[in-house]
Amino acid sequence: MFAEAQSDPTLAKEAYEAQEARLRVALLKAQYRQLQQADRSLLVVVAGIDGAGKGATINLLNEWMDPRHIQTLAFGPPEPDERARPPLWRYWNELPAKGRTGIVFGSWYAPLLREAARKKPRQRHIESQVAAVRRFEAVLAAEGVQLVKLWYHLSARAQAERARRLLASPETAWQVTRADRKVQKKYDRLCDAGRLVIGLTDGAHAPWVVIPSADDRLRTIRTGEAVLQTLQRRGPARVPHAFAEAASRRASGHSPDRLAHVDYEARLDKDDYESVLGLLQGRLAQAARSDAFAQRSLVLVFEGQDAAGKGGTIRRVTHALDARQFDISPISAPAPHELARPYLWRFWRRLPRQGRIAIFDRSWYGRVLVERVEGLAAPAQWRRAYTEINDFESQLAGHGAIVLKFWLAITPDVQLQRFRERQQSPFKHFKITPDDWRNRKKWHEYAAAANDMLARTDTPQAPWHVVSSNDKRYARVQVLRHIVAALEDAL
Amino acid sequence: MFAEAQSDPTLAKEAYEAQEARLRVALLKAQYRQLQQADRSLLVVVAGIDGAGKGATINLLNEWMDPRHIQTLAFGPPEPDERARPPLWRYWNELPAKGRTGIVFGSWYAPLLREAARKKPRQRHIESQVAAVRRFEAVLAAEGVQLVKLWYHLSARAQAERARRLLASPETAWQVTRADRKVQKKYDRLCDAGRLVIGLTDGAHAPWVVIPSADDRLRTIRTGEAVLQTLQRRGPARVPHAFAEAASRRASGHSPDRLAHVDYEARLDKDDYESVLGLLQGRLAQAARSDAFAQRSLVLVFEGQDAAGKGGTIRRVTHALDARQFDISPISAPAPHELARPYLWRFWRRLPRQGRIAIFDRSWYGRVLVERVEGLAAPAQWRRAYTEINDFESQLAGHGAIVLKFWLAITPDVQLQRFRERQQSPFKHFKITPDDWRNRKKWHEYAAAANDMLARTDTPQAPWHVVSSNDKRYARVQVLRHIVAALEDAL
Repeated sequence: MFAEAQSDPTLAKEAYEAQEARLRVALLKAQYRQLQQADRSLLVVVAGIDGAGKGATINLLNEWMDPRHIQTLAFGPPEPDERARPPLWRYWNELPAKGRTGIVFGSWYAPLLREAARKKPRQRHIESQVAAVRRFEAVLAAEGVQLVKLWYHLSARAQAERARRLLASPETAWQVTRADRKVQKKYDRLCDAGRLVIGLTDGAHAPWVVIPSADDRLRTIRTGEAVLQTLQRRGPARVPHAFAEAASRRASGHSPDRLAHVDYEARLDKDDYESVLGLLQGRLAQAARSDAFAQRSLVLVFEGQDAAGKGGTIRRVTHALDARQFDISPISAPAPHELARPYLWRFWRRLPRQGRIAIFDRSWYGRVLVERVEGLAAPAQWRRAYTEINDFESQLAGHGAIVLKFWLAITPDVQLQRFRERQQSPFKHFKITPDDWRNRKKWHEYAAAANDMLARTDTPQAPWHVVSSNDKRYARVQVLRHIVAALEDAL
Repeated sequence: MFAEAQSDPTLAKEAYEAQEARLRVALLKAQYRQLQQADRSLLVVVAGIDGAGKGATINLLNEWMDPRHIQTLAFGPPEPDERARPPLWRYWNELPAKGRTGIVFGSWYAPLLREAARKKPRQRHIESQVAAVRRFEAVLAAEGVQLVKLWYHLSARAQAERARRLLASPETAWQVTRADRKVQKKYDRLCDAGRLVIGLTDGAHAPWVVIPSADDRLRTIRTGEAVLQTLQRRGPARVPHAFAEAASRRASGHSPDRLAHVDYEARLDKDDYESVLGLLQGRLAQAARSDAFAQRSLVLVFEGQDAAGKGGTIRRVTHALDARQFDISPISAPAPHELARPYLWRFWRRLPRQGRIAIFDRSWYGRVLVERVEGLAAPAQWRRAYTEINDFESQLAGHGAIVLKFWLAITPDVQLQRFRERQQSPFKHFKITPDDWRNRKKWHEYAAAANDMLARTDTPQAPWHVVSSNDKRYARVQVLRHIVAALEDAL
């Protein structure tokens, strides 16, 4: 793949000028088609040999295309707020909306390339990072993010020559940074690292393109061509088999009916409740304020049938917490700027930093519940969501988050009774809408979706707790018990 | 104001129950009206004596109102990414959208109260913080944010009594934190601080309400009432005179015609240009990479007539910069989630952290340019914007940002010529739209708006540079010169 670039090919001025005119018009057209259709965004990942002119890509694309729809996403060493979340958080956070283009510097390849360029690369680090990168790119591609990854390459001789030429004049000497001079020494190792990483992460949905960079004109044209080809790639993204199809096979099986095996008779009397609740809240308060928790975080997910009592349960949890420590995110239908990104985007953005707690009143599981049942997500979308969600939660857990998920389970008769109470109460009838009655008619479809979800996403690192909520007091105490146990266990 | 609360009044159970039912219904109704109209948001600022039950406000409002439209905004000591921006950044960042309610803990009053509660408060710190808080709240109120500030109060005896009662039982002892016990000693000082701060920051558009807090029932009812009254307050917010009217008086004068006094003949020949440009870029590169800059930041604003050459000038600047160091924000019409907040919100969110550079291709000045001329902002809105913008920029500068603003000035004939070139160029005609021709017809209105803007917002801390751009080379070099001079001067 590097062979051509290694020979430092060039492009004559006349040939360049002819191609430039054609390319610019085609790029603009492609960009506007992307904007109009607004079903894809584009990420141009920039990497390669230092001093090969990678930075020029920004000015090039901003000049050749309409710069109002292009953003540069450049990442240096992680800042403290970034280190306080899983490594991919910073990239999720900055994803451009559909119709737009992002140019990524210091991408998710930076740590991988650094590892691969070490004197003795640690094989297991490389493997796990490659796997994470491939999963990340598969999710992006499946969700409408077009990816192209550019490796700017030139021979060691051309690199040295370029530096010499720039250094010779005071008007250009500043373009050669101290880092560039250092990198020359590491040229061979960086080439090998690039070769290795490219080989492990090339794919039809996220291809690598090697850009010969010794000659400015050729580099320019090849960059434009690579971006153009990506914009012109239409049709559904082909996500790697191993990832997407395994998920869809698993989703087609029959899941055990976990909701049927809940003890819906469980009750707690009022006196016991007050006392136990207070003691559990005390333990929760202590754990959340402990020094050990400052290095962890807590993610609580609440799902369940309508009127299962999520809100009241959440208030019993937050009662024990310092207001500065938690955020409650009530999740409903996504807003336009959220719909314009992969569906996990809005949840990534709400992840707690270390020492903090995020509470989701409904969550990313909407994808495999309401969106599945109501046909808002296509079968291919919600089927692969199980794997995507497991991967997401495993990144949280891998970074030290304690992830707990609660399904508050009630029976249809109890729901009916609560719906009626809500309708009669002057300050609760806002809680009941025509949607609730419609959903109720689909009780079995929702239950089947929930059972599938429980079967596919109950993982050791992010377990589901199915709690009977026919008696609200019982449910609240059980939820607190699980949270306290998990925290005391982890800290 | 504290007299009633100091006497620790109580509310009988029957009276409470009657009022609760009425209040909850009224609150829900008011919340839904706010949601429907979606022209206001609500901020409930919570402060007061520790151990007075401030935290209960969260659960109270989430239980009495529809929690899907309420968010808790709780701030602890500033995190590193917050310290890297002006102090109010964190509050701007989290402003709820219109229709929604935010409950604010650890608000902009926290540092002020801390200062006022010192053994020897520093008078000048208090004065400058009070002024900043008043300006902030005036901007919010004028932009449709309803504000109410709650001070939870009880007597020293009641505070001690409450702590004793809670500590007596293991089920409630955890509610008394170590901080609470310490605070009891500082009770008098905190009361005095509260009295002082409330006296200095009370206003019709952002009133303080003292909530007697010794009795849970009375505290609950009074909290609900205060929130309800705020939601029911309609009509235009009365922003304090000193702030809004001074601005509108100044805006009614005649501004000097600065655009007429530009040397539009200034030119630079090509050879000089290449050489000077390279040298200036080198100095910019060096300054931006210096250790001293790591503690500062740079905000560059580009405005000017259509086709003045902003994009090309920006690319000459970014050519000298590391991609990881700068962000370009092309500013066009606000998106729905941006329209739902005060107009400065989207710019606050794009402020650079220390060591970084934010480049705005068009900016917050749209308020007093296109929005004024096209009637998108009411006269009262754009008139007060001058003062709001000066305050905004002064916060940036006060925090160490170097703020430079460029007006690229061209003459009508040059614009016409560039419009025609654009129309004829296959890869530039996207740059010319019917809007551009329409704006051109309003040349004099735009020029008058620009002259007003230059007269009112050219401040020592954030100066305007009006640069002739009839010759693009000249403009690029001049802009770089100003940037380099400002950086070298500041570092």
